[in-house]
Amino acid sequence: METMRWEGREFLILDQTRLPGSVEYIRCRDHLAVAEAIKRLSVRGAPAIGAAAAYGLVLGAMGLETDDPGEFLAGVERIAAHLSSTRPTAVNLNWALGRMLAGLRSAGPGKPEELIRVMLREADGIYREDLEGNKKMGRLGQELIPDGARILTHCNAGALATAGYGTALGVIRAAREAGKKVSVYAGETRPLLQGARLTAWEMAREGIPVTLITDNMAGYLMARGMVDLVVVGADRIASNGDAANKIGTYGLAVLAREHGLPFYVAAPFSTVDMNLRSGAGIPIEERSPEEVTHIAGVRVAPEGVRVWNPAFDVTPARLISAIITDRGVVRPPYEKSLREIMKEGIGD
Amino acid sequence: METMRWEGREFLILDQTRLPGSVEYIRCRDHLAVAEAIKRLSVRGAPAIGAAAAYGLVLGAMGLETDDPGEFLAGVERIAAHLSSTRPTAVNLNWALGRMLAGLRSAGPGKPEELIRVMLREADGIYREDLEGNKKMGRLGQELIPDGARILTHCNAGALATAGYGTALGVIRAAREAGKKVSVYAGETRPLLQGARLTAWEMAREGIPVTLITDNMAGYLMARGMVDLVVVGADRIASNGDAANKIGTYGLAVLAREHGLPFYVAAPFSTVDMNLRSGAGIPIEERSPEEVTHIAGVRVAPEGVRVWNPAFDVTPARLISAIITDRGVVRPPYEKSLREIMKEGIGD
Repeated sequence: METMRWEGREFLILDQTRLPGSVEYIRCRDHLAVAEAIKRLSVRGAPAIGAAAAYGLVLGAMGLETDDPGEFLAGVERIAAHLSSTRPTAVNLNWALGRMLAGLRSAGPGKPEELIRVMLREADGIYREDLEGNKKMGRLGQELIPDGARILTHCNAGALATAGYGTALGVIRAAREAGKKVSVYAGETRPLLQGARLTAWEMAREGIPVTLITDNMAGYLMARGMVDLVVVGADRIASNGDAANKIGTYGLAVLAREHGLPFYVAAPFSTVDMNLRSGAGIPIEERSPEEVTHIAGVRVAPEGVRVWNPAFDVTPARLISAIITDRGVVRPPYEKSLREIMKEGIGD
Repeated sequence: METMRWEGREFLILDQTRLPGSVEYIRCRDHLAVAEAIKRLSVRGAPAIGAAAAYGLVLGAMGLETDDPGEFLAGVERIAAHLSSTRPTAVNLNWALGRMLAGLRSAGPGKPEELIRVMLREADGIYREDLEGNKKMGRLGQELIPDGARILTHCNAGALATAGYGTALGVIRAAREAGKKVSVYAGETRPLLQGARLTAWEMAREGIPVTLITDNMAGYLMARGMVDLVVVGADRIASNGDAANKIGTYGLAVLAREHGLPFYVAAPFSTVDMNLRSGAGIPIEERSPEEVTHIAGVRVAPEGVRVWNPAFDVTPARLISAIITDRGVVRPPYEKSLREIMKEGIGD
């Protein structure tokens, strides 16, 4: 199951809003379709939207009707700004678009068709490196997972949230591949049920034992001693280790601390925003009330009720036992440990 | 809006599974229909199921075809056992049935039609006293609510969960009636969305400002300083103050403590089970997986996924700032304060 696929002049995006009921791909022929797919969460997960936006930028560049290098670059920048505006919280989106633009600028002036080839190589690189990064993250992270571990996760930080393999679920997959018996509790993750729809589906397809719970059962699950650790993904990590992730993550971190359970965050280093001193600077997307008042198209709340619908929350670094990245597993104090792996770079 | 109504030979139960979309009453002509309505949560909330079971027992007694006092009593006891078996966690169910049987026994042998009149008076008493108790609880509890308070509640501990007025929502109503400006955050309360469907509806109908959130937003709501206190109901309170309530309550209590917010439990004294030393002895109902895998009849999780679906959890007394009852507001240590109000009795 690929989350996205480049097919020459078309870019296919697996429509995750339809999972697990039906497996359908959206055929994107321009960047507007990609932007729309990101906005409506057909493709979601910080690393996946970074890669999708990169391919979207290639599609956009292909649609520019100019031979002038300056006009071409200006056009690509305009399209990047549009793609970047789709979702505010995940930093991978801007990271990927920034990397695309940097690659384009360093290629120097050239014919649009040559520059498009450069861009496509860069997008392929982002996609491939994400997949490789996830696998490395999995190998490093699985060392934290004891044999027999019962693992609680939230939202979907799996193959579907990335180019493949996954971040939090990648760690779980790697533990399995290392011969450990593990089992998973998936919080359903209201409002959009990524845990129920996507994580439960991914785990079940691979025969990893998975039990679905509603989000509000996590506390009682821990109180009953039914879970050994928590591992989640992240959408943006500040330089002090504060981590934005799907709404509900913060509550799980507080509960994990209350019960003495390790709380791990798994994310590629591209999710770390070294420009931010703390999580207070992370913009938190607030989404439409209909996501809460309606489920599967059915209204469940009274007409006209006010809704607060933040898509993410911020977990303070003090509640995070370790951050698992493709550059290594880091521990507090994160100001220091994240700066160290930043300097070392990939392939340390 | 009445949650239930006795109409001579029929007992009407508001079908809360259909709210807020449609207001429909179930006409119960025998105790089996009442038992079924309790099981499928057409009537729910600890005090409401107590009152409904009492009327169900009257209907059952009316259907007994015997003139023999001994047979009649045995029949009523059999029906009480059936009604009692519908739901395990709320103690009010057994409390109400026990009170009905005690009333019947103390009436001594008599003709069934006379005994049925005795039973009906007792059921009316349970219903009326619940309503009065809620109002008293509201008056006592509202003193804990500061003017301007932004109050988080969970599930529905409102008029719909009781004979009327409500426990947790009764406290909020009473604060409003005392001239205080209050506003409410309603956690939607998965899986069955009593917060979204019932609490949001009750509050909106009375013009009390209410904002709906998914359960996993509570932590971030508190972290952002958007809420001042939490008040919830209870289904059974042990003699040490441990309180069973709708799943998710425990997590809210941990979060409230983390953020230094008062956490109040409001329940009639009939919810206190002085026979239990701690919450460890409270039976926790586990319900069907379909409640989690389906919403409004639509499947949202993959086929065959395992589900854990406890309907309640237990909040330890140490996380509860005060318990608001119709016999007074009690504070820790609850072993002592609950015993004191038990001795004083109603009308202290």
